[in-house]
Amino acid sequence: MSRVAFLGLGAIGAPMARHLARKYDLAVWNRTASRAVAFASTHHGTTHARTHHGTTHERTTADADAMRDVVITCLPTSREVESLLDGANGLIAGLQKGAILVDCTSGDPATSRRIAARLADAGVGFIDAPVSGGVSGAEKGELTVMCGGSAKHLETVRPVLESFGKKIVHCGDVGAGDAIKAVNNALLAVHIWATAEGLAALAKSGVDPKIALDVINASSGRSNTSMNLFPERVMSRAFPRTFRLALLDKDVGIAANVAREQKIASPLLQLTAELFRLAHGELGEEADHVEAVRLVEKWAGAEIR
Amino acid sequence: MSRVAFLGLGAIGAPMARHLARKYDLAVWNRTASRAVAFASTHHGTTHARTHHGTTHERTTADADAMRDVVITCLPTSREVESLLDGANGLIAGLQKGAILVDCTSGDPATSRRIAARLADAGVGFIDAPVSGGVSGAEKGELTVMCGGSAKHLETVRPVLESFGKKIVHCGDVGAGDAIKAVNNALLAVHIWATAEGLAALAKSGVDPKIALDVINASSGRSNTSMNLFPERVMSRAFPRTFRLALLDKDVGIAANVAREQKIASPLLQLTAELFRLAHGELGEEADHVEAVRLVEKWAGAEIR
Amino acid sequence: MSRVAFLGLGAIGAPMARHLARKYDLAVWNRTASRAVAFASTHHGTTHARTHHGTTHERTTADADAMRDVVITCLPTSREVESLLDGANGLIAGLQKGAILVDCTSGDPATSRRIAARLADAGVGFIDAPVSGGVSGAEKGELTVMCGGSAKHLETVRPVLESFGKKIVHCGDVGAGDAIKAVNNALLAVHIWATAEGLAALAKSGVDPKIALDVINASSGRSNTSMNLFPERVMSRAFPRTFRLALLDKDVGIAANVAREQKIASPLLQLTAELFRLAHGELGEEADHVEAVRLVEKWAGAEIR
Amino acid sequence: MSRVAFLGLGAIGAPMARHLARKYDLAVWNRTASRAVAFASTHHGTTHARTHHGTTHERTTADADAMRDVVITCLPTSREVESLLDGANGLIAGLQKGAILVDCTSGDPATSRRIAARLADAGVGFIDAPVSGGVSGAEKGELTVMCGGSAKHLETVRPVLESFGKKIVHCGDVGAGDAIKAVNNALLAVHIWATAEGLAALAKSGVDPKIALDVINASSGRSNTSMNLFPERVMSRAFPRTFRLALLDKDVGIAANVAREQKIASPLLQLTAELFRLAHGELGEEADHVEAVRLVEKWAGAEIR
Repeated sequence: MSRVAFLGLGAIGAPMARHLARKYDLAVWNRTASRAVAFASTHHGTTHARTHHGTTHERTTADADAMRDVVITCLPTSREVESLLDGANGLIAGLQKGAILVDCTSGDPATSRRIAARLADAGVGFIDAPVSGGVSGAEKGELTVMCGGSAKHLETVRPVLESFGKKIVHCGDVGAGDAIKAVNNALLAVHIWATAEGLAALAKSGVDPKIALDVINASSGRSNTSMNLFPERVMSRAFPRTFRLALLDKDVGIAANVAREQKIASPLLQLTAELFRLAHGELGEEADHVEAVRLVEKWAGAEIR
Repeated sequence: MSRVAFLGLGAIGAPMARHLARKYDLAVWNRTASRAVAFASTHHGTTHARTHHGTTHERTTADADAMRDVVITCLPTSREVESLLDGANGLIAGLQKGAILVDCTSGDPATSRRIAARLADAGVGFIDAPVSGGVSGAEKGELTVMCGGSAKHLETVRPVLESFGKKIVHCGDVGAGDAIKAVNNALLAVHIWATAEGLAALAKSGVDPKIALDVINASSGRSNTSMNLFPERVMSRAFPRTFRLALLDKDVGIAANVAREQKIASPLLQLTAELFRLAHGELGEEADHVEAVRLVEKWAGAEIR
Repeated sequence: MSRVAFLGLGAIGAPMARHLARKYDLAVWNRTASRAVAFASTHHGTTHARTHHGTTHERTTADADAMRDVVITCLPTSREVESLLDGANGLIAGLQKGAILVDCTSGDPATSRRIAARLADAGVGFIDAPVSGGVSGAEKGELTVMCGGSAKHLETVRPVLESFGKKIVHCGDVGAGDAIKAVNNALLAVHIWATAEGLAALAKSGVDPKIALDVINASSGRSNTSMNLFPERVMSRAFPRTFRLALLDKDVGIAANVAREQKIASPLLQLTAELFRLAHGELGEEADHVEAVRLVEKWAGAEIR
Repeated sequence: MSRVAFLGLGAIGAPMARHLARKYDLAVWNRTASRAVAFASTHHGTTHARTHHGTTHERTTADADAMRDVVITCLPTSREVESLLDGANGLIAGLQKGAILVDCTSGDPATSRRIAARLADAGVGFIDAPVSGGVSGAEKGELTVMCGGSAKHLETVRPVLESFGKKIVHCGDVGAGDAIKAVNNALLAVHIWATAEGLAALAKSGVDPKIALDVINASSGRSNTSMNLFPERVMSRAFPRTFRLALLDKDVGIAANVAREQKIASPLLQLTAELFRLAHGELGEEADHVEAVRLVEKWAGAEIR
C-alpha cells in the first residue's frame, strides 16, 4: 500500500501529512485549495489533488495509479467527512474496491457507522481513527491513534498510521475510536471547568490561586489539566489558541450523546455539555478551549492568576 | 516547644502521632479512650491524656508542665473540634496563653474562623492544617500540610509539623488551608464521578473500559483519579476502604459552600455536591469514596471492569 | 372524506376511535389484533383491518373503497409509526394519493419530518397531531390537538379531528405539534420534580406538606401540577397509573433534544431529562409519571403526605 | 393590643402599614427616615419613630405607652432584621416583656430561629410571617400570611395580621413560614426558567411562542407563571419591575439551603439556585425577577414574543 491521499491540512493535519510525504506517494487535498497547492510545492513527490479522492492531480493525467489505496481525512466534524462521499467527485465514486478510508477527524460514532456502511457497499473499508497529542504530538509523529473498525483493515493501514502515530490502539468496532476520543475530551472539559470553578472560588475568598494550584498538584485533585494547562495557559494569562473551544464543545456533545443513546443517566457529562455550549456561544468561534475559564471568571468576578 | 498533645488517633491520626512520639513529650487523647491507652503503652514516653487538652495524665499529677504548648487535632469534622472547646475539661479552660491549636481535620473555613476567634480571646493561637497524602503518606511522614493562620504561629509550630509533613504550605489566613483542601477533594470527587460516567457509557456501548482507560491515561483527559484510582481500585473491583465516602461528601459540601458564600455561580461543583450527597445516602456510612462509582454503574446498568 | 382508519387502540386511542366510529366508516387496527376485533364487534359499522393501512378488512373483499382517505395513528413513539411505513403491507404501499396520515402519537419532530418527506414522495400528506387532555379528555371528545403540517392538509382533516378534539391548533410546519407537546410535557416533568423536592425538604424539616401545598396553591409557585396532581395523587398516596413514566421520560428527552438541536443552552431541561431517565430506570416500565415523586422521597428519606 | 410599630415602608410594606394605620395607634420607621416622616404626615394618628422599636416618637416624649405591643418588620432579608436587635436603640433594649415581633420579611429559617431565641431571652415573642400576593394583594389587604411560631403568639397577633391579610396560615414552628415562602418562590423561579427554556427552544426552531403558550396553558404543563407572567410580562415585552430578581435569587438560595440542611439531594432546586445567582449577577440589582427570561433568551439567541 503505497499510494496515500490526505484530506484536511489543518493545524494537526498538515504535520501529519508531512510525515506521510516522507514515505508515501502522497496526494493532498484541502477545502481551501491554495493550502494544498502550497503544501505540494514544498514537499517533494507530493501532488495536490483536485478532487478529494485524489484521482486527478497535477503530476499525472489519466494515471491509473492515481487511485489511492488509503485515504486519510482530518476534518472538523463527521459532517464534513460525510459530505465528501457523494457526487461525481465523491469518495464513493472515486475509490476503488479494497481501498480504506481512515478518518482521523474527532468524529461521532453514529455518523462513522453510517459512513462505514455506505463505503462497505462500495467495497471500501473504513476506520475511525481520531488522534490525541496535539500539534506538538503531530509534529513529532508521536500521536496516539484510537482506531475503530475491523482488525484486518487496521493491520493493512497500520504502517501508514505509524508514520505519525506512536501508539496505535484498536479500540473496537467502527465508532469505538470516536467514542473514546469524545469521552477523553469530555473529561478534559470537565477538568477545565471544575478546576476553574474551584480556583475562582478560592481566589475570591482571598486565597492565592498559585498556592492553591501548587498544593492541588501535589494532592489527590490533580489532573493533566491542573498540572499543565493551568500553569502554562491560565496563570500566565497566555491562553494560546491551539484547539478551538468550538471543537471541544462538539466533542463533549458527542460524549454526552453516547451516554444518552445508551440510556445512561449521566448528569455531570450532560451539564458539562451545556456549559461548553454556553461558553462557545459567549466566547465565539475563535476562542481556545482553555478560554472557557474566562467565562467562569466572569461569572465569579475573580481572576485566576 | 516540646510538649505536644495529639487528639484523634484515627487512620491518619495514629501514624502522625507515632512520628511525633519519637521527638516530643506527647500526650494523646481519643474519644474512645482505649485507643489512647493502647497507643501510650506502646510508644515510650507517651502518656494518654484524660482530658483532651492534655492537662491531666497518668505520668504526672498536678504537673505544671502538663500544660501543652501545641495541641494537634485530627477529627472527622470541624464540629467535633468545636465541641472540644467548652466546659471545665475544654480546650479553652485547659490551654495556657501562648499555646497553639493546630487543627489537621479537613475542616470548614467558617467554623475554623469561629474557633480561631474564640481561642484568640483566650490568648491561644490557631492554625487550620488539613493534610493530604493518605494513610501511606502519614506512615512515611510525607504528608502535605495546608496551613491557614498567621505566619508567626506557623513558624512556631513548623518543626512539629515537619515530624509528619514533607511539604508545609502557608495558604493564607485562618480557613485558607481548609478551603484549599476542600477544593482539592471536590476536584477528586468530580474526577471520580465524571470518569465513571464516561467509562460506563463506553462499556455499555460495547467498548472495553480497559482499552479506554489506557488511551485516556495517555491523553489529555487523564487525572490522578484515572491513572491511579481506576486501575487499582475500580477495574480490579477491589474498592479498598481507605477514605470514607461520607467524608468526601462532607468535603465537597464545604467546597460548594465556599463558592456559594462568595456568590459564585459554580454549577459543576454544586451538582457534584448533590451527587455525592446522594451516593452517601444510597451507599451508607462505611462505603469508601471510590465506591461512588458503584452508583454510576447501577444507574448505567454496566460495570467498569 | 368519510373513510377513516385508526391505528393504535390504547388508553387514549380507543376512546378517540369510539368518537370516530359514530361518524365515519372506520377501520381499526392494533398491534395485538384481538383488541381491534373486539372493538369492531362492539362498534356498529366498524371493521377491523388486517393490515394497518386498512385496505383489507372483514366486511368487504377487494373493495375499492377500502382505501382510506384519512389514517390516524396513535402509538407509543414515532419509531412505531415509522416502522409501519414499509413493506408490502406498509402504509406507503397501501395508501392512495391524496390520503393524509394524521399522527396523534406524542412523536419527535425529526422523525415526523422524515416520515412526512417519505409520504410526500408517495403523494400522501402528513400531519403530526399529538393530543393533550388525558383519558378523560379523550372520552369526552374534548382533547386539545396540536397540529404540525400544511394548512391545506389540516383543513381537509379538521372535521375528522373535531370528532375527538375541542381545540384544534395549527402549530406550524411538520414537527411543530410534536415540539410543543414535548415542551408541554417537559414542563409537566419539571413541575412534578421541583414540587416534590420542595415539599420533601419541607416535610423533612418538620413542616406539614399539606399546609405547605395549601399555601403554595394560593401563591405564585402554583401550577397545574401542584393544584391537581399533588392533592389527588401524591398526598392521597393513590398514584393511579394513567400515563406511564416511561412515556414522560421519552417526551422530556424529545424536548431536551429540540433545545440541543437548536444549540440552545438549556441546563434545566437537560437536567430534568437526566432525572426522568434515572427515575424511569429505577421505577420500571409500568410506573405512572407521577411516581417519579417516589424517587425524590426515597432520596430525601421523607414522604409527602 | 392596640399599639403597633411597622418597620420597613417598601413597595409591599407601605400599603400594609396603611391598612394598620386605619385601626391602630401606629408608629412607623424606615431606614431612610424621610419616608417614615412622609407616611406619618399623611396618615392621621400615625407617628414616625426615631428608633425602630418605636419608643421615641414625635407625638409623645417619654411616653410609657410608646412601648409597642406588636412590632412588624418588612425588610429585604433576615440580616437586616437581625441587625436591628442590638444596641441602645435596638429592639431587644426597646421592647417590653410580652411584646411580639412579627417579621414579614421573606426571611431564612435559621436566622429567624436565632432571632426568636434571643428575643425569648428578653421575654419577647417572635413570629416569622412572610406574605404573598404582591403589591396589589398588599393594597387590597388580601395577602396570604405564612406564620411560623407558637399558636398562642399567633392568636394574639391575628387581628393585627387580618388588617392586611386575607389568609393567615399557621405553618408550624418558628422558621416554618420562611421555609414555605422560600419553597414557593423557588418553584416560581423554576417555572420561570423552565418555561423560558422551553419557549426559547420552540421559538428558535420556528414555532410561534404565542401559539405554544396558548396550547400549554390549555394543557398539563401550565402554571401560574405560564398563565399570567408570560402573557402579561414576557410576550408583551413589558417586564414591569415589581419584585426584584435579587430578592428571588435570595429566596431560591434559602430554599436550596433548607434542602441541604436536611441532607436532601435536590439537584433541580440547587441548579435553579445557581441559575438565578448567575442571572442576578448578569442582570444587576434593579432587574425584575421575570427578567431572568432575558438571560435565557440571550443564551438561546431567540426572543419569546
